[in-house]
Amino acid sequence: MASQSKPGENMLWGGRFTGGLDPLMVQYNESIFFDKVLHKQDILGSIAFARANCKNGILTREEFEAIEQGLWQVEKEWEEGTFNIISGVDEDIHTANERRLGEIIGKNIAGKLHTGRSRNEQIACDMRMWLRDELRKIEAHLVSFLQVTAARAEKEMDHVMPGYTHLQRAQPIRWSHWMLSYGFAFAADLERLREVIKRVNRSPLGCGALAGNPFHIDREAMAAELGFEGLLWNSMGGVADRDFVTETLQWGAMLMQHVSRWAEDLIIYSAAEFGFVRLADAYSTGSSLMPQKKNPDSLELLRGKSGRAFGHMAGFMMTQKGLPSTYNKDLQESVEPMLDHVKTVADSIQIAEGVLATMETRPDKMRAALDPFMLATDVADYLVRKGVPFRETHHISGRCVALSEQTGIPMNLLTYEQLKGIDERFDEDIAETFDYEKSVEMRSAQGGTSRATVLEQIKVLREMLA
Amino acid sequence: MASQSKPGENMLWGGRFTGGLDPLMVQYNESIFFDKVLHKQDILGSIAFARANCKNGILTREEFEAIEQGLWQVEKEWEEGTFNIISGVDEDIHTANERRLGEIIGKNIAGKLHTGRSRNEQIACDMRMWLRDELRKIEAHLVSFLQVTAARAEKEMDHVMPGYTHLQRAQPIRWSHWMLSYGFAFAADLERLREVIKRVNRSPLGCGALAGNPFHIDREAMAAELGFEGLLWNSMGGVADRDFVTETLQWGAMLMQHVSRWAEDLIIYSAAEFGFVRLADAYSTGSSLMPQKKNPDSLELLRGKSGRAFGHMAGFMMTQKGLPSTYNKDLQESVEPMLDHVKTVADSIQIAEGVLATMETRPDKMRAALDPFMLATDVADYLVRKGVPFRETHHISGRCVALSEQTGIPMNLLTYEQLKGIDERFDEDIAETFDYEKSVEMRSAQGGTSRATVLEQIKVLREMLA
Amino acid sequence: MASQSKPGENMLWGGRFTGGLDPLMVQYNESIFFDKVLHKQDILGSIAFARANCKNGILTREEFEAIEQGLWQVEKEWEEGTFNIISGVDEDIHTANERRLGEIIGKNIAGKLHTGRSRNEQIACDMRMWLRDELRKIEAHLVSFLQVTAARAEKEMDHVMPGYTHLQRAQPIRWSHWMLSYGFAFAADLERLREVIKRVNRSPLGCGALAGNPFHIDREAMAAELGFEGLLWNSMGGVADRDFVTETLQWGAMLMQHVSRWAEDLIIYSAAEFGFVRLADAYSTGSSLMPQKKNPDSLELLRGKSGRAFGHMAGFMMTQKGLPSTYNKDLQESVEPMLDHVKTVADSIQIAEGVLATMETRPDKMRAALDPFMLATDVADYLVRKGVPFRETHHISGRCVALSEQTGIPMNLLTYEQLKGIDERFDEDIAETFDYEKSVEMRSAQGGTSRATVLEQIKVLREMLA
Amino acid sequence: MASQSKPGENMLWGGRFTGGLDPLMVQYNESIFFDKVLHKQDILGSIAFARANCKNGILTREEFEAIEQGLWQVEKEWEEGTFNIISGVDEDIHTANERRLGEIIGKNIAGKLHTGRSRNEQIACDMRMWLRDELRKIEAHLVSFLQVTAARAEKEMDHVMPGYTHLQRAQPIRWSHWMLSYGFAFAADLERLREVIKRVNRSPLGCGALAGNPFHIDREAMAAELGFEGLLWNSMGGVADRDFVTETLQWGAMLMQHVSRWAEDLIIYSAAEFGFVRLADAYSTGSSLMPQKKNPDSLELLRGKSGRAFGHMAGFMMTQKGLPSTYNKDLQESVEPMLDHVKTVADSIQIAEGVLATMETRPDKMRAALDPFMLATDVADYLVRKGVPFRETHHISGRCVALSEQTGIPMNLLTYEQLKGIDERFDEDIAETFDYEKSVEMRSAQGGTSRATVLEQIKVLREMLA
Repeated sequence: MASQSKPGENMLWGGRFTGGLDPLMVQYNESIFFDKVLHKQDILGSIAFARANCKNGILTREEFEAIEQGLWQVEKEWEEGTFNIISGVDEDIHTANERRLGEIIGKNIAGKLHTGRSRNEQIACDMRMWLRDELRKIEAHLVSFLQVTAARAEKEMDHVMPGYTHLQRAQPIRWSHWMLSYGFAFAADLERLREVIKRVNRSPLGCGALAGNPFHIDREAMAAELGFEGLLWNSMGGVADRDFVTETLQWGAMLMQHVSRWAEDLIIYSAAEFGFVRLADAYSTGSSLMPQKKNPDSLELLRGKSGRAFGHMAGFMMTQKGLPSTYNKDLQESVEPMLDHVKTVADSIQIAEGVLATMETRPDKMRAALDPFMLATDVADYLVRKGVPFRETHHISGRCVALSEQTGIPMNLLTYEQLKGIDERFDEDIAETFDYEKSVEMRSAQGGTSRATVLEQIKVLREMLA
Repeated sequence: MASQSKPGENMLWGGRFTGGLDPLMVQYNESIFFDKVLHKQDILGSIAFARANCKNGILTREEFEAIEQGLWQVEKEWEEGTFNIISGVDEDIHTANERRLGEIIGKNIAGKLHTGRSRNEQIACDMRMWLRDELRKIEAHLVSFLQVTAARAEKEMDHVMPGYTHLQRAQPIRWSHWMLSYGFAFAADLERLREVIKRVNRSPLGCGALAGNPFHIDREAMAAELGFEGLLWNSMGGVADRDFVTETLQWGAMLMQHVSRWAEDLIIYSAAEFGFVRLADAYSTGSSLMPQKKNPDSLELLRGKSGRAFGHMAGFMMTQKGLPSTYNKDLQESVEPMLDHVKTVADSIQIAEGVLATMETRPDKMRAALDPFMLATDVADYLVRKGVPFRETHHISGRCVALSEQTGIPMNLLTYEQLKGIDERFDEDIAETFDYEKSVEMRSAQGGTSRATVLEQIKVLREMLA
Repeated sequence: MASQSKPGENMLWGGRFTGGLDPLMVQYNESIFFDKVLHKQDILGSIAFARANCKNGILTREEFEAIEQGLWQVEKEWEEGTFNIISGVDEDIHTANERRLGEIIGKNIAGKLHTGRSRNEQIACDMRMWLRDELRKIEAHLVSFLQVTAARAEKEMDHVMPGYTHLQRAQPIRWSHWMLSYGFAFAADLERLREVIKRVNRSPLGCGALAGNPFHIDREAMAAELGFEGLLWNSMGGVADRDFVTETLQWGAMLMQHVSRWAEDLIIYSAAEFGFVRLADAYSTGSSLMPQKKNPDSLELLRGKSGRAFGHMAGFMMTQKGLPSTYNKDLQESVEPMLDHVKTVADSIQIAEGVLATMETRPDKMRAALDPFMLATDVADYLVRKGVPFRETHHISGRCVALSEQTGIPMNLLTYEQLKGIDERFDEDIAETFDYEKSVEMRSAQGGTSRATVLEQIKVLREMLA
Repeated sequence: MASQSKPGENMLWGGRFTGGLDPLMVQYNESIFFDKVLHKQDILGSIAFARANCKNGILTREEFEAIEQGLWQVEKEWEEGTFNIISGVDEDIHTANERRLGEIIGKNIAGKLHTGRSRNEQIACDMRMWLRDELRKIEAHLVSFLQVTAARAEKEMDHVMPGYTHLQRAQPIRWSHWMLSYGFAFAADLERLREVIKRVNRSPLGCGALAGNPFHIDREAMAAELGFEGLLWNSMGGVADRDFVTETLQWGAMLMQHVSRWAEDLIIYSAAEFGFVRLADAYSTGSSLMPQKKNPDSLELLRGKSGRAFGHMAGFMMTQKGLPSTYNKDLQESVEPMLDHVKTVADSIQIAEGVLATMETRPDKMRAALDPFMLATDVADYLVRKGVPFRETHHISGRCVALSEQTGIPMNLLTYEQLKGIDERFDEDIAETFDYEKSVEMRSAQGGTSRATVLEQIKVLREMLA
């Protein structure tokens, strides 16, 4: 079509041209080497489209059956690894499949498949089906990870450890409470994921290139056949909307931030100076130079890959910025980030589960890291119960801390007289306050670190998995 | 408390110290100059907390009433602009409010307010309440903008214009179809916003510093009083979770991408070369140098601010990356992006509505930009209806395009003989194909650009606003 | 080493374990499938290291020669494609090369290669050498692209077109002036690139795992052998510093923004409504549905890939955020973004050059898009030369614009009387102002769009390429 | 100019209109409330422009002098805080200054100031001058911080501490070596900063709106007067190029990553479990609930603000993506990120310096954290010196580690017989290997942690500051 410009004659540039083509451009342009992963979705979409065009009278029943059989044959070649991609011809998965179909059933019938259809709607359809299915697998991985979290929280309820704020020892907590703090972050990810899937799973089929389908195609029938939960309601949006990718990337970037922070905590807890946990060998590696090293590589990779996931999101949002509406070729750049993101997230959740399921805990180390200063709030609260205003008790307790620091006597070993000297309202029962287990049990309002409220959290969490 | 290091004596550095303080650090640290916007939420939260501590027996009824009255007095000072912030003392809104309360009702009672409470839970509570309320306002702005979209789509149904892919003329569409393509993107934003609000609106109150509340405080009563729809279930997460901010920023960044692309289309359509729309003067500006200019500044600012919104999101996600769990001071960096983001998004939606509501359309220019090549698909479809396989019709139509280009005769003015020369199967009724209105009406499958399907879209869109 | 935990016995999890290993973890961890691209750099680095260890007396001359020969043999296998990667064993390129070397020359000698060395320094060394070489290739591509820009600017000096601000016609400019506006942005990229290369090209070899080399290795000799321009001066930084990657990604992300904006302009200029340029067929594609379409796919891919390049940068900066110092496994995530970024940037510059070199311009369309309003500033300037203050002339010229709009008479066709009616100071020579070529030639201050100043720009640009 | 559309009559929207204006749009559009910070640069630029127009004959000497005097009067009002901004009129700093100038010296002369000039070049000129000056201040802060680093490294040379990789104890290092590892990262920032300043400091004055200046203005004279080091060579680029902002933001985002990682290390080192450093009270804060807490707030803010700095960069790059060339109003969004970025970076460097200068170190805690396993590499190296291949020594040393773990005997207390039992080649002098100071001194190749090489690093670093 149109007149051919002949770049080879241009005097400015010798260039890379061979036979009127720039081979680098061919490679820069073609997507087959990554979008081939969508082969099955593409074929299912084509069958649904052909079936609908058969109902419309565009195809005869015989034509449809030939097409359907031919397409299954193509799919079989993909699955058996015998499909032969012709680079420079099979620009994308749609072109490849239709080219091969024509070879199998003849171009006369195969040439009718694309009636009223555009690659714009095809790629959107293929991506949505593929992503919906993958996100459902991720949903299952996430549920499994949370089940391990809940099981481990239940089992290791007795471990008491320092809770940190600002990475400074703050108050004693249950180790299970720590695990559940991330558990609820991941449960919110699960809730969001289910909302995302719902929006991914809408059908663009029948939108044409941008303006709609001119053959009264039955969009709802196609959507139902392909397992979609609804239609995209505007054909221009239907072909160009990649928000389902963006939303997935935003979702995954946030989940990976949770993974990263969870890993960060565990890396710190597995440092020699803390020593609360020890990774299974399967998730650690040694050093090529230092024989004594056992490094938490799995956790570091989990943390590092949160950047990769963020990069997918940031990069693709940049790609979309300021594009004119409907299809622009820029959107081809949505496929690779989607594929790598899904792999990154799916692998990472499974690795995190493996790490958590096999990690050894060291309750002795946790307990050894508790120090009496962590009960300073309990000392203040003790006086609150005697009617002293909190702001005053906070200062009194602060003076106990200072006395302990000055004398070098641990706060729990200060004598009753020493405490009385600071404030008259201390009674002998103050001694009972210096008990980490008791401190933990005092936090019994909902969401707190007492046994009963941690058990309630486990119950709530499990209900969210259903 | 603890021994004071005296940096002034350090020999490495003369420094900026005055009275043991680094004045730059005081300013670097204090948040009062931006978190003061949360004054009312902070006061409501304190009242709810005091009420719950009254039920628990921590406060007497008289104490509670004094606190409540005192807090309303503080709030009155904020509202009347008479609250006097003491920089270097009123580090944040919580400290400021409690300091002032103590001045009003005396420190003995005011000093009991903070019993069992931490600023960690306070700031989370304040931010969530504020954000919930602001997002509901944004929801209303968005609904209003979509109502204008629907009304304008209904009113200007007759305007037919070129639909573009790759910014190349593709097929004729209705102008209303274009407006609705963005309408559905914004409607998805609305759906997502409602999901986000639900997660923002959960109560952290009663979580303490990290381990929970030791006075059996009734978290559900506090949540109900403050309009929260549920609790945060783990106290460590409750104080440290800023996902409600991240989620809002992700949401807003995506919405602003839609605003940006919508603006990009309109900027192009208002270029002299297109001329389809003309902005009201209220949303344009002139040039200081060029007397003839009328620039679409409003649209450019909308487009530009999508970057700002993205920056909030990307920046805050970076801030959170790799933080250890629970509260870290880094989280103070969540407040300013939240405030600026909400303002950016709220303003932008309202400006977009104003632009759309007042913009002039030029249906004559739209029609003039239609060219017969945009009917090439219709020519192909014509032959499809005669039983020719689409792939063949596509080539035939391509040859018609080529003939038109070579001869300089517009495709719709090629003679019947010329067309017949290309393919025998053209009949005289091919002439009826060269009709833009007919082309538009042919796209009558759901979601297409025919009148009936555009009307259906308007109906569906309006249902989504409820 | 150390006691083996046996995750299989753990009751929480059935897991994926086979022989004590999690096969997913093996795959998640190993980098060989992407870092194998560094094979030659790894081998050159090993030879340099062995040579230095020979001078130190760690290796005998015979041992060194065996190692050197063996390593060249390994390299030959890589180059001939016969190197057999053993997954699960050859975790990374360093391990793979050393494993193979041992097979070739025996473990006794091969086992001495790694003396005093760490994989931490090896990977940094390999990456820096590889990147330095690739960036020099990119430098050459960029110079070539700029030479085409300069040549085309010289050749097409006579094309006058509308210059736009706000995408509104502003003032006439030379088409060459437009090309050069990007030329200087790319020339700044070139300047920056040369600075980046200088910092990439510093040697980490001899830094050990983190603390330095204990065998008095001669770092400067190794650096010289490998073509480095200097040393990294602190061993902890030497092994962990990935700023050379970040800097490259920042550099490339900015260059790709230039590419993207350049492409955006050309996409707009190739829209039918503008029609200033027409891409060669080699850089365009058709539509599967619409026979008339010729889409600027190359430009859209260039624009879209700017997002990919940004994503590399944003993602890897996220990965690095908050990492403790020295080597952490997270840094493995630096390799893939670097590889894909370099490919993206190198390909894109070459495609851009091809597009520019082969693109057809339409000076007739450019000229047709000029309209007399674009001379309004010249009208104002005319009066300035008569001594009228500019602010007044700006208003007078504005009234001419308004009169033209009201009467429908193009501004240049307003009669002398009409103009005189607006302001007495118009003389008959005002007619000479309505000349686009003259307007262009008037902008003769340096950097302006007159012929002489455009020629000067070309000269300056060419000097920057040297 | 042009016909006024009257949006108030539009039936779709009641709107916010007052007197034909949308007050929200007025506020959305105006930049005066942030660009007023550029008042002095704007005035200096105007004086230079007027002086050049005087030389050209556009202004008489009297007119120029009146303008100059008037502008200094305006500047005085800014400096004394008496300049009265009229919102809705003084849209930006340029408009405000010219409006006020007209009031002072009369519109007849003031109205000549803008001859041949555009706000497009003015804002670019103002921003570049302001930024150049601020970056030079930042350069001084950075030098000062590095001087403290070098001084402290010199002074505390004797402190030996664990060096970590993967946050696991790896090999002993000098505390000074750790400080210098960041020192060289910051020194590279300094090198880059100087390159950035050079590119910021180029003059756009005389570029006009986009096409250049029509009055032969002497651009080089203006540039020299304003302290610029060169011209921007293309007028279209000159007015629209914001790469000087982007480059600054990229630079600052990387510097803040260094700050963030430096802070992360120090936060970990100040955790009770490490205890290597203790922040001065001036840079710490307490807890409102927990009396014993001393939190490293300064470090956490430094770490957190690295996200803010990244957000500026990511956001503004998003804003620029895909913009058509020359000025678009989107570019107004470059000012605020620049202002906040410069403040963030300048403050952060100064805070970091204060923290470092006043921080207490605990060499006893550092030494206590050393453990004999950290000498395992030295044990391996010992055998290397006896001729055993490293790979073998690595395994032998690994067996020593394992024996120590099994027996619970620290590796340095294993008997000579026990070691001999593992490998015959151990001699009695192996005992000398278990000496942390010696291990450190062994790393004497350049860049290593021995005293001499650390001193050399200090020397090199100081040379980079000049």
